[in-house]
Parts: sequence; structure tokens; C-alpha cells
Amino acid sequence: MRDFSQDHRWLSINTATVRKQQGAEVPLARIIDQCAQRGIRAISPWRDQVATAGLDATARQLRAHGMALSGYCRGGFYPAADAAGLRAALDDNRRAIDEAKTLDAACLVLVVGALPGALDGTPHYTDLARARGEVFDGIAASLDYARQVGMPLAIEPLHPMQAADRACINTLEQALDICDVLDAQKTGALGVALDVYHVWWDPKLAQQIARAGRERLLAYHVCDWRLPTRDLLSDRGMMGDGVIELKKIRQWVEAAGFAGYAEVEIFSALDWWQRTGEETLDTCIARHRTVV
Amino acid sequence: MRDFSQDHRWLSINTATVRKQQGAEVPLARIIDQCAQRGIRAISPWRDQVATAGLDATARQLRAHGMALSGYCRGGFYPAADAAGLRAALDDNRRAIDEAKTLDAACLVLVVGALPGALDGTPHYTDLARARGEVFDGIAASLDYARQVGMPLAIEPLHPMQAADRACINTLEQALDICDVLDAQKTGALGVALDVYHVWWDPKLAQQIARAGRERLLAYHVCDWRLPTRDLLSDRGMMGDGVIELKKIRQWVEAAGFAGYAEVEIFSALDWWQRTGEETLDTCIARHRTVV
Repeated sequence: MRDFSQDHRWLSINTATVRKQQGAEVPLARIIDQCAQRGIRAISPWRDQVATAGLDATARQLRAHGMALSGYCRGGFYPAADAAGLRAALDDNRRAIDEAKTLDAACLVLVVGALPGALDGTPHYTDLARARGEVFDGIAASLDYARQVGMPLAIEPLHPMQAADRACINTLEQALDICDVLDAQKTGALGVALDVYHVWWDPKLAQQIARAGRERLLAYHVCDWRLPTRDLLSDRGMMGDGVIELKKIRQWVEAAGFAGYAEVEIFSALDWWQRTGEETLDTCIARHRTVV
Repeated sequence: MRDFSQDHRWLSINTATVRKQQGAEVPLARIIDQCAQRGIRAISPWRDQVATAGLDATARQLRAHGMALSGYCRGGFYPAADAAGLRAALDDNRRAIDEAKTLDAACLVLVVGALPGALDGTPHYTDLARARGEVFDGIAASLDYARQVGMPLAIEPLHPMQAADRACINTLEQALDICDVLDAQKTGALGVALDVYHVWWDPKLAQQIARAGRERLLAYHVCDWRLPTRDLLSDRGMMGDGVIELKKIRQWVEAAGFAGYAEVEIFSALDWWQRTGEETLDTCIARHRTVV
């Protein structure tokens, strides 16, 4: 396993971690500068942040800093109430792939979606198998385009507590089953984004990480599981402040061949988003060296 | 599939559903009377409620009403910080088995426990594999005694969002793997309590229910998954108020051979526990007939 204790060259910051600082939304350009000042070599920004900052301006800023993208957040959200909605989702994913390419991202992360309308509290249907079928078809369609462009797609299995509203792919095994059908040759065009927050509990985690292998492990996200967890979405912990066995999981991931960034993604409305970006980033660096 | 629309003979009430009425704790004896008045033929009470009411008094009251126990809540919580704690847990489970026998319960439900101390926010260790090993050993020891007494043990897989603090058995597949080792002959001594709240999201649910079969399906619990879910423990919905495909899952369960009670278990600090017990129970009956 790589030694992270001497530097933070394999640290990436998902910009959601510092998108709010002292309770207020912060422009992406400032986040990029804050990371660059600390020698952070990679980030993973969100589409809405990039849209606000401007795609070309962001690409220029990243190039100026020599900063890489460990991933681009995010495509997906395929299921829809009707055929027009399904088509709109495919078009939107095509745009996301183009943006990821412009930014030279390592992969486009797919949060695949679930029951359409559920995020607003009014699902158009509750047939989970239908949603999963629409997700499968959506990934297949996006993959056709992503292959042409040369942008790897990384399916992110989300925690089962988000199965209704955010993603109906909820285990690594389920994600890999899809990869095996759509990219049987393991070309690297389709794989997974493994976020410890979503999968740490899985009794088959070690087995499925080994199954995934280097070709399928496209991104690795870290944070921690707090006790108690006060919110299903935005109460993630800083690495080391919870119960996830980070070193054990990284060992499995690296044994399977992963050699990329450990990307910190912390949604924390009650804690880290209330602090300064400087404190959050400095803590990420310190924890990267000690507990990741 | 059985027709539930004409009566509620297969309705059971887990007493947690009405343990608080209009915000206040209610004695078990009153809950039993409220159920009996409505022709509810079965309940599943909690150990602390029985302890307060008195074991023998509760047994007498149940007999007087001809009321069955679809299960007894609960044994488990095996992992511990040290050897003394592990022994204490085994002793406590032995007492739970005895109580279940006195009350003539269909099974003792096992919420197996997870990282010891995590419920209080200070886990003694974070080694999930160790906790799972202690759970396995604990179930094995309890099973020896339960077989002698003739009390079936029902492992309840809990939602992965409770993997740190309440139960480190988190999928039906994982529970059945344990059953297959400890009760390979499918004697009925060891099985599962399947609560839709914990497992509805599982892509392997139908497959694993079929695998479980009649011998392993010892209890079936219903409620619903609310949108949004505001709390990880106590924000369950009334059947029909969420997104769980209740009829589809019951069809799978009955196709596998289950023919027992549909037990309503709703923890609802913000909603149903604020209402009268009468309203909650009448709603359970109505929903049992229409959406379960």
C-alpha cells in the first residue's frame, strides 16, 4: 500500500467539501486557488459550479495550476416520468461527457438516479425494477457516446438509504454486474467510483473490490461515518472522525490495482461547511497523511 | 397471494408502533387491550415493556384475549468490548429466550448488534469483521440453548444505515449465509425476520427471499419508506405513505411459503407517536386491507 504519510500528492478534493465556507457558497475559482496554494494536485468539481464559473475559464484556470481532475461530478439521473424525460436525461449526460472531456477529467461520475420525482417528494412511480431498467438503458446509451469521445464512465453505487431518491444502484456487486454486461472486455470505458461512505458496511466489499480490479476502479472517495449520523445526506464526517476502516479499505483497493487519487468528498451542513475553507482543506491534508 | 382485503386476521402489531401515543409512553397492558378491542389477533412486544408490565401478568393477559405473539423483540446485541461483556450478552439472550417461551412467541427476533459502544457514540473498536465474528459466535451459542427450549431465532437484517450501531447483519443474503452454516438442515430453529424497511432497496431481494424459503422466513414486518426520511431511526412511514412495493414483496414472501402475520412496526417520533393509539391502530387495519 502506498505511503501517504510523507506528502499529499495523492489527495484530491471534491469541491463539494468546501463549496460552502462559513455557511456561504464559495465560487469555484476561489476553491481552485485555495487548493493550488496548498499543493493539492487534483480536484473533482460539480457541474453547477463549473457552469457558474464558465467551462472554458475553469479549464484555463486548471491548466494554469497544472491541476488534474480525479473525476467530474456528475452524470446520471436517468429515470424519468416519460419518454421525453428519458431523452432529456440522455442529452444532458452527453453534455456532461463533453464538459468532462473539455476539463480532461479522469472519469465522469454517474449518480444514476432512482424513482423519478422522489427527490421532490412526489415519485412518478415506485417500481424500483423499472427505475433500474431505465438506469441500465441510460448507461448503455451514454457509454456509446463516451466511448467515441474517450471519457470513462464511473458508476457510483450509493448508500441504500438513498435508493429511493438519488441512485438505485446500491452495492458494488450490482454496479459490477452492469459493467460486466456493458463492457465485458474490461476496456476501461466503464467502471465504478467507489465512495467508502456508501459501501463501507457491505459484507461483500473486499470480495467485490477484488472482482472489480484495476480496470473497473476508476475513482476512490473518502470521508467518514459519524456517530450519530443526523441527516441522510449532509452529515458526513472528516476522515478519522467516524468508524469507517479507511486504511483497510484502501489496502483492498490498492491490492486490486488502484493507484489513483484518494478524493475527499464531505457533505457536512452542520460542521465542515460552517468552517473556513482553509481549516477544512488543512484538515483534509492532515488526515490524508494520517488516517486515509 | 392471500387476500387481505376482507379482514385483518393476518395483521400483527409490533407494540413499538403505539408505545407512544400523543407523545407519551403507554403501558403494554393498555396496548394489548386496544389491539384486542379491534380484533387484532397478534402482537410483538418489546422486552422492556414486558419487564415493566410483568412477564406473568402479560402472559395471562395475552391468554385471556387469545392473542398470539408473531415474535418477541428482541435478543441480539452480541458484540462487546471484552470477554465479560460477551458473556453478559449471552446470558441476557438466554433470558430473552426464556421470556419468549413463557409468552409462547413464534420466534425471538435478533437485532444482532454492531460496534460495541457505538450506540452511545463511543465505539470500543471499529473492526467490523470482528463484530461480525462475535455476532456469529453469539448466535451459535444462543441457538444451542434455543434448540433445547424450542424457541426459533429470527435474525433481522437491519438497514445498512444502522450497520455501525445496531446490527452488522445488513442483507438477507448475509443472514441466510449464517443460517446455512448454523442450521444446514433447515430445521426451523434458525431463520430470519424480514422487515421491508431494511431490505426493500436490495437488488437481490427477490432472489434471496426465494432462497430463504418457508423454513427460514420466520417473521415478516411492514411499514413504509418516507420521502424525505428525516431521521435514520424513527421516521418510518405508515404502509402506503411511502415508496416500498409492499404487495410485490409480500407476493415474493408468500411464493416462498410464508403464511404468517404481516407485523406492523413503525418508529415514528414525528408523526404516528404523536397521534392517539386508536387512530394509529385503525389506520394500520385500513392499510393492512388495502396496501399490504
